[in-house]
Amino acid sequence: MHILILGAAGMLGRKLTDRLVSGTAGLSPDTLTLVDVVEPLAPAGFKGNVTRQAVDLSAAGVVDRFVATRPDIIFHLAAIVSGEAEADMDKGYRVNLDGTRYLLEAIRQEGARANTEKYYPRVVFTSSIAVFGTPMPPVIPDDFNLTPLSSYGTQKAIGELLLADYSRRGFLDGIGLRLPTICVRPGKPNLAASGFFSSIIREPLVGQPAVLPVSDKVRHWFASPRAAIGFLIHAATCDLAPLGGRRSLALPGVTATVAEEIEALRSVAGEAATRLITRKADPAIERLVSNWPEAFDTQRALALGFRADASFEAIVRVHIEEELGGRV
Amino acid sequence: MHILILGAAGMLGRKLTDRLVSGTAGLSPDTLTLVDVVEPLAPAGFKGNVTRQAVDLSAAGVVDRFVATRPDIIFHLAAIVSGEAEADMDKGYRVNLDGTRYLLEAIRQEGARANTEKYYPRVVFTSSIAVFGTPMPPVIPDDFNLTPLSSYGTQKAIGELLLADYSRRGFLDGIGLRLPTICVRPGKPNLAASGFFSSIIREPLVGQPAVLPVSDKVRHWFASPRAAIGFLIHAATCDLAPLGGRRSLALPGVTATVAEEIEALRSVAGEAATRLITRKADPAIERLVSNWPEAFDTQRALALGFRADASFEAIVRVHIEEELGGRV
Repeated sequence: MHILILGAAGMLGRKLTDRLVSGTAGLSPDTLTLVDVVEPLAPAGFKGNVTRQAVDLSAAGVVDRFVATRPDIIFHLAAIVSGEAEADMDKGYRVNLDGTRYLLEAIRQEGARANTEKYYPRVVFTSSIAVFGTPMPPVIPDDFNLTPLSSYGTQKAIGELLLADYSRRGFLDGIGLRLPTICVRPGKPNLAASGFFSSIIREPLVGQPAVLPVSDKVRHWFASPRAAIGFLIHAATCDLAPLGGRRSLALPGVTATVAEEIEALRSVAGEAATRLITRKADPAIERLVSNWPEAFDTQRALALGFRADASFEAIVRVHIEEELGGRV
Repeated sequence: MHILILGAAGMLGRKLTDRLVSGTAGLSPDTLTLVDVVEPLAPAGFKGNVTRQAVDLSAAGVVDRFVATRPDIIFHLAAIVSGEAEADMDKGYRVNLDGTRYLLEAIRQEGARANTEKYYPRVVFTSSIAVFGTPMPPVIPDDFNLTPLSSYGTQKAIGELLLADYSRRGFLDGIGLRLPTICVRPGKPNLAASGFFSSIIREPLVGQPAVLPVSDKVRHWFASPRAAIGFLIHAATCDLAPLGGRRSLALPGVTATVAEEIEALRSVAGEAATRLITRKADPAIERLVSNWPEAFDTQRALALGFRADASFEAIVRVHIEEELGGRV
């Protein structure tokens, strides 16, 4: 089995690669193609064939050479995050819209090549809950209107529509995952406006201060990196027939307020950790966050076998296990 | 006032031009720019400046020269219809997606030119009820999910998303009209699979036979060409603030079954006219039509002042007035 990961150098791409080569994923790739804007790291301990390349997937024709090797499963994780897509509109549309369209079109063209076997890869596309915007119900159903309030959300919604059309026409077997906000995101903050949801846990756990720019009452929808990787793996293998034409779906997450995040931090790491959080209101972030969803009705995803983290405290513990060697 | 019509040579474009130059539209353009893939006809009796051009709007940079003249209102009607977009996927995406994106981007770039006045045109985009697909409720609300089951519907849904994002970012003041199926469509059949809804009225009214490829029980959503032009004109001038970020909406139509269409034909033109309709089931069209919507909740459009035809019989009478000199 040949697996292609676009966006393999990012946080999810690296963790996905690690899981795939660990042999615990229920998938046994003999060939991995890892692509990103910077060269992805070599996966440790993998015995199969690995190709790693740094390319610009937003340029026409670049993805074609990878598709021409006919990977069985394609994970399309490559994207500019929300803050950057809003700040640099051209780059956001180029990477998030053109890049996705080039991929789908390359698959269609590969499948249309004369005198070749049928080519029909599984495509797992990371969409986002940012495809939804206010006004919206407290618990959002999968059939709620696509109403993005950011260029990033717009680009992801367009990606979902393209994925559904190319799937409907039989060129590929696509699924779009509206991932919850990944929390606790390891490493340095990126340009996503949602970064504080992670930093108020991540920084205090290592004795560093963190800034909380919004109210304690803000409620949002989370999954640990481990749960997210579980979603990706499951999406690569599960039967998609129950989805019908609606190829994108919300994934089960944990709904929690900032206050509940802090409570989980307190119960795992003690009162002192929570004192490292400084409240400093940022009206721009408050405004953005007020347009974000709080919770989802994920019955379709649950029926397909996707599973969430157990609680926000479990999310904090995943971070400690995966990033801090199990110690606070 | 300068008005640009993209797709000016099509049925709606011609009727819109006629209405604008008639002085009855509540709009008084002194300049008209009429653009299509074939050169639009000169509007009769118009005293202002007219530019007419045949160009390919799906090619990069072509629309820029028209936008550079800073029209106050842009009607974007240019599109490949559903049947053709399904049959020729490349052409459909090029015209319906790339063409729309080039327009929006040209407006953004024009507004960004240094040392110029702010440019903020009203953009009226003809979307379609094909942005929705089964399963859907009998009466579809405006906030129902975008679930197209055709490449045409996908391209229109993407156009809506782009229009909303460019409007949100302040580059233009856009509104997307999910027009009901236009009936009775004058002239020759086009490649739209919905053509029979019109031909079973249009042909018998002039003593010609017509084929009905679906069951009498099929229900659909209609507007006369006159009502559609009314929607376009109203959309060009009404206050869009009540729409918020949701720039596309269903327009008030008449919901009618094929049997009700035939009943209206009978009451207007007599029993003999209905005998010109031959039933000949076409499973491919039956299948397509079974995925089409039947009726919409148009409270948002009604609140904005959009008005529907009174009945299907009224729709038949509009056709007789506009196309047959008032006589059957």
